[in-house]
Amino acid sequence: MISEQDINAAHERIKPFIHRTPVLQSNYINQLAECEIFFKCENFQKVGAFKARGAMNAALQIPKDVLQNGIATHSSGNHAQAIARAASILKVPSFIVMPKTAPLIKKNGVLGYGGKIFECEPTLQAREETLAQVILKTKATEIHPFNNEAVIAGQATACKELLEDVKTLEVVMAPVGGGGLLSGTALAVHYLNPSIDVIAGEPSGADDAYRSLISGKIELSQSNTIADGLLTNLGTLTFPIIQKHVKEVICVSDDEIIQALQLVWEKLKIIIEPSCAVPLAALLKEKEKFKKKKVGIILTGGNVDLAKLVPYFK
Amino acid sequence: MISEQDINAAHERIKPFIHRTPVLQSNYINQLAECEIFFKCENFQKVGAFKARGAMNAALQIPKDVLQNGIATHSSGNHAQAIARAASILKVPSFIVMPKTAPLIKKNGVLGYGGKIFECEPTLQAREETLAQVILKTKATEIHPFNNEAVIAGQATACKELLEDVKTLEVVMAPVGGGGLLSGTALAVHYLNPSIDVIAGEPSGADDAYRSLISGKIELSQSNTIADGLLTNLGTLTFPIIQKHVKEVICVSDDEIIQALQLVWEKLKIIIEPSCAVPLAALLKEKEKFKKKKVGIILTGGNVDLAKLVPYFK
Repeated sequence: MISEQDINAAHERIKPFIHRTPVLQSNYINQLAECEIFFKCENFQKVGAFKARGAMNAALQIPKDVLQNGIATHSSGNHAQAIARAASILKVPSFIVMPKTAPLIKKNGVLGYGGKIFECEPTLQAREETLAQVILKTKATEIHPFNNEAVIAGQATACKELLEDVKTLEVVMAPVGGGGLLSGTALAVHYLNPSIDVIAGEPSGADDAYRSLISGKIELSQSNTIADGLLTNLGTLTFPIIQKHVKEVICVSDDEIIQALQLVWEKLKIIIEPSCAVPLAALLKEKEKFKKKKVGIILTGGNVDLAKLVPYFK
Repeated sequence: MISEQDINAAHERIKPFIHRTPVLQSNYINQLAECEIFFKCENFQKVGAFKARGAMNAALQIPKDVLQNGIATHSSGNHAQAIARAASILKVPSFIVMPKTAPLIKKNGVLGYGGKIFECEPTLQAREETLAQVILKTKATEIHPFNNEAVIAGQATACKELLEDVKTLEVVMAPVGGGGLLSGTALAVHYLNPSIDVIAGEPSGADDAYRSLISGKIELSQSNTIADGLLTNLGTLTFPIIQKHVKEVICVSDDEIIQALQLVWEKLKIIIEPSCAVPLAALLKEKEKFKKKKVGIILTGGNVDLAKLVPYFK
């Protein structure tokens, strides 16, 4: 069970290694959405995503003698860079299992921090099997991208900062993939201001969290979306937290995701990745639910292969 | 002759109507460029470009009885939006002559502020003739995009803020089209810290400023570049200031512009328009000149038609 104290301790622990990211607003988007949106810009975070928080919090708690063997993970991208960066700061090796299909910019990010990449098929099974082999060989410590309490507590610090900076929020939104950010966000809200509703956005092409909340068990993701950061299923740690503390999951199509992405690019003048546009797409799709409210949205990351996105722009 | 007092007065006059934009840095870009770059983010300015400064400064100085007839200009885009916005704040009409080829996002910006658009061929002659007709009919006051002292003094305030925020600069860079920003920047540096070198970037496909400095007279632009904000010739007011206070103009190809643009998008996670990437492209092209220096770069705007840019991404 992750406590308020765990989240506070995570924040103090990682502060020297992360940015306190800004909160931006757009009059144009507010008028369009008919509510007041506060965008927490984790696309400006170290490694270009909130993942720098959880990875650093987990790595800093590994005992020194074990840490020497390095840290390892499987990730479609941003967590991979975050682990490679944490290892590079702590001066230990990192071993990263990535699906072949991961964006080039994310692979280059890992290599830039001196991480060693092991490519595999883009399935959860292939990722887990390859990682098991790597760990057997290296004795590195696994830091799971989301199913890890230290990672969840670390991700919670993004929402903690948002609630500190904007005191009047009535809703907080985050996307959901494996649920590390969403469960951390839900816990931060639960401890700091439980009157706030936590609502998730999820791609219709990977709507496993939506289905899991209906069925009451962890459903598999069909992984058919442009939002490449949200392809994974929920984890055994993240699912119960989401079940308890998240009010609703709203699903959106890839077209809706791209529209929201373009809106943020054009009006806020900032680069976000598709996964990151999902909550705004969800808000715009079900506008009535948010009318006149003060809504915090965590913009999760800004690592995009521009060339890959290009065919979607109209 | 624009004085230091004119620039200070412009700054006080427009402060309630503009953003003091942030200055950003990227470790990655600094390492690549082998110098320390401070990006002044006018892409986050009102209307998405520094042009909000000069237009507002000029409009605020028109006598009330004349102002009632409205304000008018010809512009390929950002100045057009800036004039429409200034008119909307001052509750008077605005009349904007735009080349047919101007990006849709810029036309929509003008319409959004209630400006009336008159389309014309994309030549200086067509723009000036159409504007003359419009003014004859409406009795509106022309605010030229760059050949206007109030506009130049207004644009100078971007560099003034940059010099106030970063005290140690050794070089300041800006792009050059008509020269409003560049001459304002050169004057701000001249008055506030003349030991700083002012260096301009210009597209090779519209290198009229480069040729003008060689020939000693205003040369015509060939207007063949992706940098759609930099297609115009220098003006009779801007040219002498640039001649006197700008150290050098460095020309870059469209490929170099797109590379610099992608670098800013990917590493700073912010949207800038092609015109705006020109100084960074110039710096990267002639790296040796800037080695280990502290360089301020004015990122001029962030209004892009994404679909139009798309074919350039690799």
